Amino acid sequence: MVDSVDIRTKGLKKPVDVAEYLFKRLHQVGVRSVHGLPGDYNLVALDYLPKANLKWIGSVNELNAAYAADGYARVKGISALITTFGVGELSAINGVAGAYAEHVPVVHIVGGPSTISQKNGMMLHHTLGNGDFNVFANMNKEISVALEKLYRPNEIADQIDSALRECYLKSRPVYLLLPTDMVQAKIEGERLDTPIDLSDFENDPEKEDYVVDVVLKYLHNAKNPIMLVDACAIRHRVVEETKQLVDKTKLPVFVTPMGKGAIDESHPCYGGVYAGEGSLPEVTERVEAADLILTVGALKSDFNTAGFSYRTSQLNTIDLHSTHCTVRYSEYPGVAMKGVLRKLIEKVNPGELKEVKPGPEVKNEVEENKDDSEVIKQAWFWPRIGEYLKENDIVVTETGTANFGIWGTKFPVGVTALSQVLWGSIGWSVGAAQGAALATKDLGDNRRTVLFVGDGSIQLTCQEISTMVRHNAKITIFCICNEGFTIERQIHGEEAEYNDIIEWKWKDLPTVFGATEGKAKSYQIKTKDQLEKLLADEDFNNRDGMQFVELYMPKHDAPRALVLTAKASAKNNEKTGSS
Amino acid sequence: MVDSVDIRTKGLKKPVDVAEYLFKRLHQVGVRSVHGLPGDYNLVALDYLPKANLKWIGSVNELNAAYAADGYARVKGISALITTFGVGELSAINGVAGAYAEHVPVVHIVGGPSTISQKNGMMLHHTLGNGDFNVFANMNKEISVALEKLYRPNEIADQIDSALRECYLKSRPVYLLLPTDMVQAKIEGERLDTPIDLSDFENDPEKEDYVVDVVLKYLHNAKNPIMLVDACAIRHRVVEETKQLVDKTKLPVFVTPMGKGAIDESHPCYGGVYAGEGSLPEVTERVEAADLILTVGALKSDFNTAGFSYRTSQLNTIDLHSTHCTVRYSEYPGVAMKGVLRKLIEKVNPGELKEVKPGPEVKNEVEENKDDSEVIKQAWFWPRIGEYLKENDIVVTETGTANFGIWGTKFPVGVTALSQVLWGSIGWSVGAAQGAALATKDLGDNRRTVLFVGDGSIQLTCQEISTMVRHNAKITIFCICNEGFTIERQIHGEEAEYNDIIEWKWKDLPTVFGATEGKAKSYQIKTKDQLEKLLADEDFNNRDGMQFVELYMPKHDAPRALVLTAKASAKNNEKTGSS
Repeated sequence: MVDSVDIRTKGLKKPVDVAEYLFKRLHQVGVRSVHGLPGDYNLVALDYLPKANLKWIGSVNELNAAYAADGYARVKGISALITTFGVGELSAINGVAGAYAEHVPVVHIVGGPSTISQKNGMMLHHTLGNGDFNVFANMNKEISVALEKLYRPNEIADQIDSALRECYLKSRPVYLLLPTDMVQAKIEGERLDTPIDLSDFENDPEKEDYVVDVVLKYLHNAKNPIMLVDACAIRHRVVEETKQLVDKTKLPVFVTPMGKGAIDESHPCYGGVYAGEGSLPEVTERVEAADLILTVGALKSDFNTAGFSYRTSQLNTIDLHSTHCTVRYSEYPGVAMKGVLRKLIEKVNPGELKEVKPGPEVKNEVEENKDDSEVIKQAWFWPRIGEYLKENDIVVTETGTANFGIWGTKFPVGVTALSQVLWGSIGWSVGAAQGAALATKDLGDNRRTVLFVGDGSIQLTCQEISTMVRHNAKITIFCICNEGFTIERQIHGEEAEYNDIIEWKWKDLPTVFGATEGKAKSYQIKTKDQLEKLLADEDFNNRDGMQFVELYMPKHDAPRALVLTAKASAKNNEKTGSS
Repeated sequence: MVDSVDIRTKGLKKPVDVAEYLFKRLHQVGVRSVHGLPGDYNLVALDYLPKANLKWIGSVNELNAAYAADGYARVKGISALITTFGVGELSAINGVAGAYAEHVPVVHIVGGPSTISQKNGMMLHHTLGNGDFNVFANMNKEISVALEKLYRPNEIADQIDSALRECYLKSRPVYLLLPTDMVQAKIEGERLDTPIDLSDFENDPEKEDYVVDVVLKYLHNAKNPIMLVDACAIRHRVVEETKQLVDKTKLPVFVTPMGKGAIDESHPCYGGVYAGEGSLPEVTERVEAADLILTVGALKSDFNTAGFSYRTSQLNTIDLHSTHCTVRYSEYPGVAMKGVLRKLIEKVNPGELKEVKPGPEVKNEVEENKDDSEVIKQAWFWPRIGEYLKENDIVVTETGTANFGIWGTKFPVGVTALSQVLWGSIGWSVGAAQGAALATKDLGDNRRTVLFVGDGSIQLTCQEISTMVRHNAKITIFCICNEGFTIERQIHGEEAEYNDIIEWKWKDLPTVFGATEGKAKSYQIKTKDQLEKLLADEDFNNRDGMQFVELYMPKHDAPRALVLTAKASAKNNEKTGSS
């Protein structure tokens, strides 16, 4: 066996096991905690986590783990998820697909059978029994910006480095298949002394200058320009550049629902949430009257535009994206927004801009939406929450009433908002909140994480509360109890049985899922008065742990923006080829 | 619009909406309850369920729904699952893949965006935002024996009929994509008067005769023949034929772990569970001494063979499969076992068989495995359960200790056993038990469903208890509390943190998940004595509802068969190409 050891490490200056290499690389790019479940094809790899100073989360199921990894990456910049072959990875695939759709960088590591078992097509557990070991990787191809099967030691370091780089730079998931017999294969550890190059793709300078000049020409000529900031501004990391451009130009700036949180909402230039017909009238009016809309990271999905209801013209629009820019109808492929924004900040001359009119004032319209009843209604609740939130909170909203209600919440400075408006997988927010809380803890700032989720959605992923308890997460959950799937009722089947759920003892969930005496606090809130008292309570505001609010709202009540978007969606579903 | 209506129904004798056609077909092939979740792309379709006398289950999440559909199909013969595009179908995909691996017929219906939205590549919610509407169907291709996109009304009836036929006959999942605008498209309803032809593929009679003669030749010459019945005997519906062959020949008959339940275990010819080294010594000896092994529906996966530990020779083996037969090394593709078995029963001459020696006696070895301590150990528990079980119970075992422990349980007559030994997705059994209980209710026999699941596995799918409560399922859950993932500990990481879980209030799960006073009963059992009392309790034995037993066993205790199989698995994971 001496020979075989020699062969394995021959020519290596600092031999290191593959799993150690991989995990140390994860640490270097910013991962501190890893989500996932044990499975016999990944067990030996898991032994290497502590060596790389990575914390194992021990998730309750793979879909929740994937959602949590998504939430973690949105706050920490990147995340990792470890599953086992077949069963584990497929349970996670919806969560990973969501990260792909929403531009979230998740490194998905799948522990697979040994290369020799694969080569021999053995009928192993967690396979389809047909000897085909490529099926699941193939499924992952379309939701990964890189897919690497770590089969040959001499290629593995390159594969890992390149995949992590792709993951971070393209801000989307990558997939690594790690067979059991490669976990301890030896590769060159000296590479670890040089961090992976994560610097942005550089634009061709001449092309970039050209685009900047065109943008400036339109900007300087516009009579009524505004900016509109969307999802990809956050995901492709140009929030700081966007802020600087706003600061320098004083342009009125709006966000889309998916861009919410990208702009400090106390900024004098901030004008509110624009989503076509779903916006407040003064916002719609102001945005649609603009003769130039500079969008940053636009992602014009149906729910992000209240059912494609923008009444803006591409002739008045400049779109800056992570992979290209578009000015009116002129396209500039390969010119990324970061370079363009930086040069714009440098070159724009505020003196040349026509008189910039301020946008509408944004505030939490609590009094305006208050009625006499003690019942808590959506219209009042969301602005009221805006007053409850504190600087630097992390706010997670579920697909459903929360994602639309939050349009009416004005955030304090520094709030990070997480939502999954494009992919819209119900239950996502519970996992995501766990991941987000963990990320802020790993960052050492331990901000509050506040989750808004409905009773229908929490059903899907409720056991993630157990993970929150296990890691003593600082999370406040507002569970909106309104008897089922409100977003579906708004689209179709208002009274249909299929939109009903059964009543749970919601507020007992933390206890059942392992919270011991004093570890989690639960509240039941049925009136405005009770809510006011709770939101004013000092312990509730500052608690360094978990709390769960069972919050009752009427069954058929929905935020205005949801009602409008649902109508558009129902109409779209009815459309036929012949109509 | 009058014109358009005419065009839609022109030439149709009995116009019927697509959804109504589909659901009536489901009813005709045997589906009575449908699992799934509402989503806006399937809502209008769901309105049609009552018209076809189908019951909507209202599942708590899609993976659980898929597991439940799997369990339902194993008892009822076929099942249906309805999800929504992208998010819903991907959440279910691991469950559907399991049904594919394990030969279970599930009709997966996915509500998709309208054909016009798809054609226009709109950026809709539940898509990747890239205009590609084929991604998810492509993922489903490799786990479906038919995949039909219902895009053109004039083809839809054929597509549905052919998919349902494939599903049933091949006993594996099919995938139907139903766009919103096709739900109410009109198709020919007159077809509904003729049921779908579900009769078996007929073998070429000459070929079949040839195979039967060859089999008979070996059978009549063998000195010590036995039969071994496996998974596909159950899934491809030859249990009755197998029984008749045993009755006529009096051959000793054994089952594999996945074949358990196929043979009446009180039958004088029944000799026990054979899985190579994992079997009881007298079983191994008897099977491996046979000079002819006639296998029915073999599926020789690692966990079904205790790590490929058969010591039998193909020269002594005849394999009957659903798609082909193999006699020693001679293959007969296209010759299905059902026809062969029927002709064998007819032609075999018991007088020509050499003296048939009986197999080992099978009994529940309770006393043999009893120790003095009050602690409940695996070795004693499983035979003891054999005495608790009643005729016609449905027994569901989870991947983990339960799947291996059950080898030591001798079933009463008529027990149906459900396990997922090949795919082995943890958490499956909770969903499957719900589906199984529903199926027996739908069949009108309302047998007891008894579930054995560990504390690690139940974490993944615990909310399925809510569905059990919602439909007042007659289920007894034995939740084995032994501090985490015992099967993983046996393979690797005996004391590793990643195999730990946190402690839940297991027995409160039914209450939290909606069981009101008296609707569910919970027990905590820590000693043999307590268990004996419980198993003797009349109410416990006959309760027509849900009951939950929190059952404590030692952390490092595992069934013998698991220990042996885990060792083989660990060894296999270590194997390298160079070793």
